[in-house]
Amino acid sequence: MPEPISFTVHNTSGNARTGRVETLHGGFDTPAFMPVGTRGTVKGIFPHHVRTTGAQILLNNTYHLMLRPGSKLIQELGGVHKFMNWDGPILTDSGGYQAYSMADLNAIDEDGVSFKSILDGSTIRLTPEIAIQVQNELGPDIIMAFDDCPPSVDPDAGPTNQVRIKQAAMRDSKKKQGYDHNARLEIANERTVRWLERCKAAHANPDTQALFGIIQGGTDFERREWCLERICNIDLPGYAIGGVAVGETSDDIARVVRHTAPKMPAHKPRYLMGVGYDRDITAAVLSGIDMFDCVLPTRNGRNANAFTADPTTDGQLRLRNAKFAKDESPIELGCDCPACDPASHAWGTYDGRPFSRAYIRHLFVAGEMLGPILVTLHNLRFFQRLMEDLRHAINTEEWGEFKIKRPSLAPIVDRALLEQSPSV
Amino acid sequence: MPEPISFTVHNTSGNARTGRVETLHGGFDTPAFMPVGTRGTVKGIFPHHVRTTGAQILLNNTYHLMLRPGSKLIQELGGVHKFMNWDGPILTDSGGYQAYSMADLNAIDEDGVSFKSILDGSTIRLTPEIAIQVQNELGPDIIMAFDDCPPSVDPDAGPTNQVRIKQAAMRDSKKKQGYDHNARLEIANERTVRWLERCKAAHANPDTQALFGIIQGGTDFERREWCLERICNIDLPGYAIGGVAVGETSDDIARVVRHTAPKMPAHKPRYLMGVGYDRDITAAVLSGIDMFDCVLPTRNGRNANAFTADPTTDGQLRLRNAKFAKDESPIELGCDCPACDPASHAWGTYDGRPFSRAYIRHLFVAGEMLGPILVTLHNLRFFQRLMEDLRHAINTEEWGEFKIKRPSLAPIVDRALLEQSPSV
Repeated sequence: MPEPISFTVHNTSGNARTGRVETLHGGFDTPAFMPVGTRGTVKGIFPHHVRTTGAQILLNNTYHLMLRPGSKLIQELGGVHKFMNWDGPILTDSGGYQAYSMADLNAIDEDGVSFKSILDGSTIRLTPEIAIQVQNELGPDIIMAFDDCPPSVDPDAGPTNQVRIKQAAMRDSKKKQGYDHNARLEIANERTVRWLERCKAAHANPDTQALFGIIQGGTDFERREWCLERICNIDLPGYAIGGVAVGETSDDIARVVRHTAPKMPAHKPRYLMGVGYDRDITAAVLSGIDMFDCVLPTRNGRNANAFTADPTTDGQLRLRNAKFAKDESPIELGCDCPACDPASHAWGTYDGRPFSRAYIRHLFVAGEMLGPILVTLHNLRFFQRLMEDLRHAINTEEWGEFKIKRPSLAPIVDRALLEQSPSV
Repeated sequence: MPEPISFTVHNTSGNARTGRVETLHGGFDTPAFMPVGTRGTVKGIFPHHVRTTGAQILLNNTYHLMLRPGSKLIQELGGVHKFMNWDGPILTDSGGYQAYSMADLNAIDEDGVSFKSILDGSTIRLTPEIAIQVQNELGPDIIMAFDDCPPSVDPDAGPTNQVRIKQAAMRDSKKKQGYDHNARLEIANERTVRWLERCKAAHANPDTQALFGIIQGGTDFERREWCLERICNIDLPGYAIGGVAVGETSDDIARVVRHTAPKMPAHKPRYLMGVGYDRDITAAVLSGIDMFDCVLPTRNGRNANAFTADPTTDGQLRLRNAKFAKDESPIELGCDCPACDPASHAWGTYDGRPFSRAYIRHLFVAGEMLGPILVTLHNLRFFQRLMEDLRHAINTEEWGEFKIKRPSLAPIVDRALLEQSPSV
């Protein structure tokens, strides 16, 4: 049987590795960062420009596309690649995470989840079978299993973020009395394994679309290992770590990934879902993760928050700030994105100067679209430059250069190298 | 004394002519269409892409830039070209039109106009001297006189558009009793001449910025001629027809322009302000107009209305319409814009397919920025293709080809050629 994807590891440095995944729509170098194109578009950016930032694979959200314009329509129009004019690899999530975190959840049971559409309030049903069918219709190269993704932190245990508030409210309305976080995690963990079996059985295109299993288990090592063993026992082209970055600290994320990633099959791509900041990505790459996605570059870009490698700005510039009103410098010196260096050969024949922080601030203050576009492109390039630097450091095993270039990430590298040192 | 611009007529066809204007920031071919970059940006579009649509000169609105970020700030940052990263020619209007049409007008007197800022309600003063000073600070290549622009149609005479409603309301609050439209037009006309003298006297950079005078006079030929004679008697590098497209019909616009344009100095550029649809532009070019600006391509683009040369769609496609939900065709076959033909050599190395009407409709329905971006680019290219076709027809005196390509404009061409025929 033909394989929908292939994966080759090129080099390793400790647990970190570089490699390449080939799909029927071309390949991508790993470790890879996937920009999020929620509704079949990376907000405000031409597909061509997304590619020019260095992105080789995109993520689309099944939840959003199934509600609008609908997966059958996209199938009729030739699939999601053709629909959105991106002929490179595409990965879709299963819709489960958004169903849990965004929707009013009506019911979760052993068969699946019912929730209200955010568009018109109608009731939508997602089961493992439906989630796979929808992804088969959308037609991406990599599809994700439909899993049960509970909050990683007990909603009663302290301050909550938006996801947890929603999930807590959902449970509150059903069965506030008697909610047992540990019991919920156990059920979710076991259900995720049963649902993966159903996903695999329902998958209609195993020759052309690679189904990835998702390892749940929260922040508890024992539960993670229990799940990892069972998920990875189901033969699939790739595996993901799910249920992180849903409310824990960076330290907790790193701890779980450090424990889990090296135990995942070495000859298959390892994907850490929904992560994250440069520090989280760097720690995860050093633990052996190959694929990432996150809304940070695009969402923060739309809000005038620009990522930089400059530790004096604490990593992010808030470009609405009045202190930038007369600032003629680009977002980040040395960056080759279309905002910072439009003349760079990477952007074609354009001979323009850098867009100044003063101008970008003006665009945001005036509510002009070009502001979000410029900072989104900068941030996308920032994340791809991080991946390029990480791949270079792994390939050359030269982490000193990486640490000099990105001093704020040096402690993360040092810690990983120390732990992985054979002499310790 | 060095001239801020030069103008050469290359060819004529009847009253129509092709030529080239050279400025200190490069030149542009005439007849020229100037996209509107209201707040120092053509909404959602990279300056590089605006240029690639064929635009060679942009218009910025003084009114918006003086309020935010302020002309002194832009001057401090090196002027509007550097600020917005457009190194080609730029024209600014005087701010007068927006002061009349957008703001709550507090007072108009012989010295100038006071109005409330749309941003914070503070009182702003515009006089001929201030309008020129602000444009001197902004630093465009062509600046416009501050004129008195009354409604062309008596607000009491029938249905009103937004501009006239505002102006009528303003007058109502001051002196509803005794408003005499004809008297108002007379005053405006005479005042416009007096204000132009003051503009010229106040102009600090006549070597580097070309001041254009504006001919007012409404739809009355006698009043137009009175104004034309006096305005063109003041020696300036160019002249404009103002006070059209403020509520009249297309026929009225064409009639006024046909009467006025040929009487304007032949060796200087003639600019018709705020016009318009392809039919209005074509009629005006055939009357001898060289320069145009209009918000139609950008504003309609943001609202999913795409211009096409296809008479079966009545010139515009409303791409939100459900009938486009499964339409795989591009906006317009044969168009080489980045939406219709991303692979065109004009757009660099991108090898993408056309964006389908179905996808563009999805983007608008989902509220995605890429929708307005794609249709704006298409419309900008549509207007530039019109100008290219007009220049080609004038240069070759071959209007048959033009009429076949744009059948809806054929009657306009026929009428102009008939009127200008020496044998008639």
